[in-house]
Amino acid sequence: RRARDVGLACGRLKPGPRNAITDVPGVRVGHCTLSDGATQTGVTAILPHGGNLYRDKPVAAADVLNGFGKSVGLTQVEELGALETPILLTNTLSVGTVATALIRHAIAANPDIGRTTATVNPVVMECNDGPLNDIQALAVTEAHAAAALAEALASADGAAVAVGSVGAGRGMSCFGFKGGIGTASRRIKLDGKRCHLGVLVLANFGRAGELRLPDGRRVGPPPQDSDPEKGSVIVIAATDAPLDHRQLRRVIRRAGVGLARVGSFWGHGSGDIALGFTTANRIDHDETADSVPFRVLNERRIDALFEAMAEATQEAVLDALVAATPVTGRDGATRPCLSALLTAAF
Amino acid sequence: RRARDVGLACGRLKPGPRNAITDVPGVRVGHCTLSDGATQTGVTAILPHGGNLYRDKPVAAADVLNGFGKSVGLTQVEELGALETPILLTNTLSVGTVATALIRHAIAANPDIGRTTATVNPVVMECNDGPLNDIQALAVTEAHAAAALAEALASADGAAVAVGSVGAGRGMSCFGFKGGIGTASRRIKLDGKRCHLGVLVLANFGRAGELRLPDGRRVGPPPQDSDPEKGSVIVIAATDAPLDHRQLRRVIRRAGVGLARVGSFWGHGSGDIALGFTTANRIDHDETADSVPFRVLNERRIDALFEAMAEATQEAVLDALVAATPVTGRDGATRPCLSALLTAAF
Amino acid sequence: RRARDVGLACGRLKPGPRNAITDVPGVRVGHCTLSDGATQTGVTAILPHGGNLYRDKPVAAADVLNGFGKSVGLTQVEELGALETPILLTNTLSVGTVATALIRHAIAANPDIGRTTATVNPVVMECNDGPLNDIQALAVTEAHAAAALAEALASADGAAVAVGSVGAGRGMSCFGFKGGIGTASRRIKLDGKRCHLGVLVLANFGRAGELRLPDGRRVGPPPQDSDPEKGSVIVIAATDAPLDHRQLRRVIRRAGVGLARVGSFWGHGSGDIALGFTTANRIDHDETADSVPFRVLNERRIDALFEAMAEATQEAVLDALVAATPVTGRDGATRPCLSALLTAAF
Amino acid sequence: RRARDVGLACGRLKPGPRNAITDVPGVRVGHCTLSDGATQTGVTAILPHGGNLYRDKPVAAADVLNGFGKSVGLTQVEELGALETPILLTNTLSVGTVATALIRHAIAANPDIGRTTATVNPVVMECNDGPLNDIQALAVTEAHAAAALAEALASADGAAVAVGSVGAGRGMSCFGFKGGIGTASRRIKLDGKRCHLGVLVLANFGRAGELRLPDGRRVGPPPQDSDPEKGSVIVIAATDAPLDHRQLRRVIRRAGVGLARVGSFWGHGSGDIALGFTTANRIDHDETADSVPFRVLNERRIDALFEAMAEATQEAVLDALVAATPVTGRDGATRPCLSALLTAAF
Repeated sequence: RRARDVGLACGRLKPGPRNAITDVPGVRVGHCTLSDGATQTGVTAILPHGGNLYRDKPVAAADVLNGFGKSVGLTQVEELGALETPILLTNTLSVGTVATALIRHAIAANPDIGRTTATVNPVVMECNDGPLNDIQALAVTEAHAAAALAEALASADGAAVAVGSVGAGRGMSCFGFKGGIGTASRRIKLDGKRCHLGVLVLANFGRAGELRLPDGRRVGPPPQDSDPEKGSVIVIAATDAPLDHRQLRRVIRRAGVGLARVGSFWGHGSGDIALGFTTANRIDHDETADSVPFRVLNERRIDALFEAMAEATQEAVLDALVAATPVTGRDGATRPCLSALLTAAF
Repeated sequence: RRARDVGLACGRLKPGPRNAITDVPGVRVGHCTLSDGATQTGVTAILPHGGNLYRDKPVAAADVLNGFGKSVGLTQVEELGALETPILLTNTLSVGTVATALIRHAIAANPDIGRTTATVNPVVMECNDGPLNDIQALAVTEAHAAAALAEALASADGAAVAVGSVGAGRGMSCFGFKGGIGTASRRIKLDGKRCHLGVLVLANFGRAGELRLPDGRRVGPPPQDSDPEKGSVIVIAATDAPLDHRQLRRVIRRAGVGLARVGSFWGHGSGDIALGFTTANRIDHDETADSVPFRVLNERRIDALFEAMAEATQEAVLDALVAATPVTGRDGATRPCLSALLTAAF
Repeated sequence: RRARDVGLACGRLKPGPRNAITDVPGVRVGHCTLSDGATQTGVTAILPHGGNLYRDKPVAAADVLNGFGKSVGLTQVEELGALETPILLTNTLSVGTVATALIRHAIAANPDIGRTTATVNPVVMECNDGPLNDIQALAVTEAHAAAALAEALASADGAAVAVGSVGAGRGMSCFGFKGGIGTASRRIKLDGKRCHLGVLVLANFGRAGELRLPDGRRVGPPPQDSDPEKGSVIVIAATDAPLDHRQLRRVIRRAGVGLARVGSFWGHGSGDIALGFTTANRIDHDETADSVPFRVLNERRIDALFEAMAEATQEAVLDALVAATPVTGRDGATRPCLSALLTAAF
Repeated sequence: RRARDVGLACGRLKPGPRNAITDVPGVRVGHCTLSDGATQTGVTAILPHGGNLYRDKPVAAADVLNGFGKSVGLTQVEELGALETPILLTNTLSVGTVATALIRHAIAANPDIGRTTATVNPVVMECNDGPLNDIQALAVTEAHAAAALAEALASADGAAVAVGSVGAGRGMSCFGFKGGIGTASRRIKLDGKRCHLGVLVLANFGRAGELRLPDGRRVGPPPQDSDPEKGSVIVIAATDAPLDHRQLRRVIRRAGVGLARVGSFWGHGSGDIALGFTTANRIDHDETADSVPFRVLNERRIDALFEAMAEATQEAVLDALVAATPVTGRDGATRPCLSALLTAAF
């Protein structure tokens, strides 16, 4: 079940056909889920397109709302304004292993890396699934990362995205409920052509009792010993609207609006980081011309993308909460599911 | 009337005695209001303390949520982490005149400026009151700035703050209603001692129909030809909690949370900028020791300040809306008052 | 006399025909110089093109090496990546007056400002000419700013730039010598077409005795009571190479290389700020299409622009020093001229 | 041999007793060098102090001059202003493996990580040693990282630092010569007490022919097929001067001055990144008080640290070049040694 199925639509813009990040043509998502006793974790892969990303780099940008996080690859994304690998999501302590997997993946397709051309900038983002997952076990291997990549590559263009307690979302918690992966999208019309902005979140943030539904109600799990806030949220945005790096960074910064509306104040311990890309402007690694054409937005139209980003982020978080299925993790830890509470309440 | 008087309290933290930026000891506010036909504008002065700010500089920080704005002085605040003049608010096109007034004010008290010591960094922030005020008239003079400063200096420590359609807030609009100046504060306990974080906003942002009350209701003015979004919001934060520049910047960034919750998505045309200072750490312009003691927050306590900032920003915006009184400006332009609508509705 | 005339050429790239910022087609420079007893100051205007800049905005970027400075307009340049007024340079305490002049200049040409369209972002940059000029006198008026603008507008495309103790450079000091305005340019070939990068500096920085000539020699004025370092340097870069905002910011950041090579360590009290624009990408204020074409650089060619920026900045500083003529200012203060010392020495 | 032994001292400030980063009390350095045929690489560890860094975190800051780099951990350092692991340096493609080793190292000493307290932010920085090392082999293992850490921990306080073709510097190239690890330090007197600023560089940048010696001479290796610029330089700064995060960031930014003076223009392909820490202000992970005392610099004394940073960076690069011994790597690749050329020439 999705957020919209239970009445938790956000905002006024229309979603795309899947209401998912895959509404942006070319984008693919894959998961590898680890579920074995105290190991409740995984890897999620987002591919901007199905081709060789190192050769054909989408324009990208990152915005750090609260930098208590261990994502890798952001420095180069901000300097060069481009992405050259898939984006992998995982748990905090597996970032190194997953980055290494991305490096091997890139070298396999591009044997000139580190030889006759530059090296490669793996982008891996993370949340701490500690309470449910035995994060110290470092259970994620390079093979798990490769499996998530393979699933993404094998998926059809425009395919639905598996959401909830899957992939990197397996062990995540959110506002005291079970969290995980969620997605949403919005349609934008530019020069008579339909574009989309899609968001995928890894939702692992928010204090119990502070979740806000779109109608303003606060909902929380049954009282319990409160966790110290140790969560985070990663917001991945994809679009086929024509933006340059500066415009894209402005757009993805509005992730913060969606997070605030759903009840977060971007807490100290929460690594709240957005990363976005547009498939409309690409950088050819082997370009021989000295300059190349781009297409950029008339900035006076950018509010449509700001709204889309705010709405899709808010709804993607609710989507993660609604889709999340029960997980029993380390030492028998569990989190209640929002969907159970909503079913009971309404 | 204040926001809280009509049931628009925000959040769970307790306000200070005045629920105003002046709950931070030493802080003073003064206004100079221009109201004459098409001229509906003014100047608002915020003083971190009543002494010589150039000699005794509070630690300060700035955070630009959306930089479509013409504030002056932010570059040096970010480099040096300190404020050395009062903060003046006015309309966009009067920033130059008001900055010159601040320079003269600083030289009068510090005749060594530009002679045997450095120059001075005036901080002036602004919103565009164009729809109600004849902004092209550049009606604000240095004398008006001086009058706002004088009123602030003459006010008692801890005095109430005049809010609504006063000072720089005279001609402002917000979510299609009359906007202006609003304020709020929150109490924080640190090491057994009571501190405050106070916020003052110059509220001139938001699209008609998108205002959200704390209970989730959307309220808007009667339908009309919609304005193009040309507004902005300035958020000034004061505290006596011990913070360094980095911590203070983290705190004031949460202005964005309050703005999002009240219905903004930090629109393209809106210069949404926060500036904060703490009176707990001061820099002596004439310091002779090579190093000096500071007091900083145990960062694991910073969530209390994040929440205070988010709540106080949200409530200060509602305060501006509730306190705003009717203004008839250029070409007979008016904006409906939220308080009238609330009175009618409830 | 220019730096190159006395053997102070920098680097290996070839300069443009004028070795000046005006080698970039369309760029114009004008000065208004005040020289009357203790008043030794002025205004310098740089126009990216001769048309209506508010309607036809060049892509622009700013980079703050050391933010001990009071420039205005940088926040919006960084958010929107565009310039919409001429750039005016003046002394630190005249920034407000000169900003107001720019506002009136923009309104005169665009009566819809603050009425039916947005307001305007004046860009004014500054150094402290305090030691030679009676900066407290605030002698610069709006009429002086208008005169600099008028001179720039009246100049021919590609005209030589007056350098040395002129305009805003009138009262400036540099490495203990007389400073002021300097310029230089470099040619770059892109896709077989000749482009230029031109730099204009307002040079008012550097400690006596630390100036380095291109061959590595240090030169200084005769020993004297050392000033406290209160200087600054503004570096304006113009190009017709196709860059987006991100690329342009990378390029202008290399101003810091040129400054370091000439002997600066970007001192604490020095507001070292670079601002650049490209005439190759323009933003139409009244654009009606939702997206527009840009042309951007193949990033693997950007080193040519980095080198050009480093070399032209270094040479422009030397140019200011070589061209500076003697000025006797407040209380009879003077600075020795580098050209006199070079003539004596060689 | 060190740079200073062959007359390549830089600047006017005095070095510390070792002219090394270890002149800052507590700082320790260790290397693990891999040299086996085509594998010419390694790991270098820098410890801010010999205790538990996760429990006792030094204030830290990062500054990205040119972000074409893959360092990990910088986002959190900038948000929280602290370091909580040793700093490890290695080759670009081994960053993931080395980060994982740091995580395990931190968990071993702090079993509450990811259980009852937060996770940990490993800081790993890198350069591409591709031309000499078979970087695709990913030859560095977690055990190599552990060996570098163990060597650092076992070293005496104030011990000399092994420089040249060791540790992460094994396969590095610099201005067409053999590069590697270099170090230098400067003394600063504050309130009558002697402090130090020490720098360690991983030098792998610069185009052949563009190296500048302190006297202005350019030196280069014999002509050859020029490499595409694929290098980088990491600059680690340590001090016991009392600085807060903002001040420290200002200081380490002056790494760029030293790099410019030695001949770099911060090339496109070079990840030029500085990271610094001060042992004078520490953050207790388990602090129970709500606020804590810090000691900060009187900012008007900061030029001494700026100069120290510029000088020590410049000299540390020359130190790496002078100390580098011959390495024959992949496909028999070599780089000439600067010391051989200097010996021949003088």
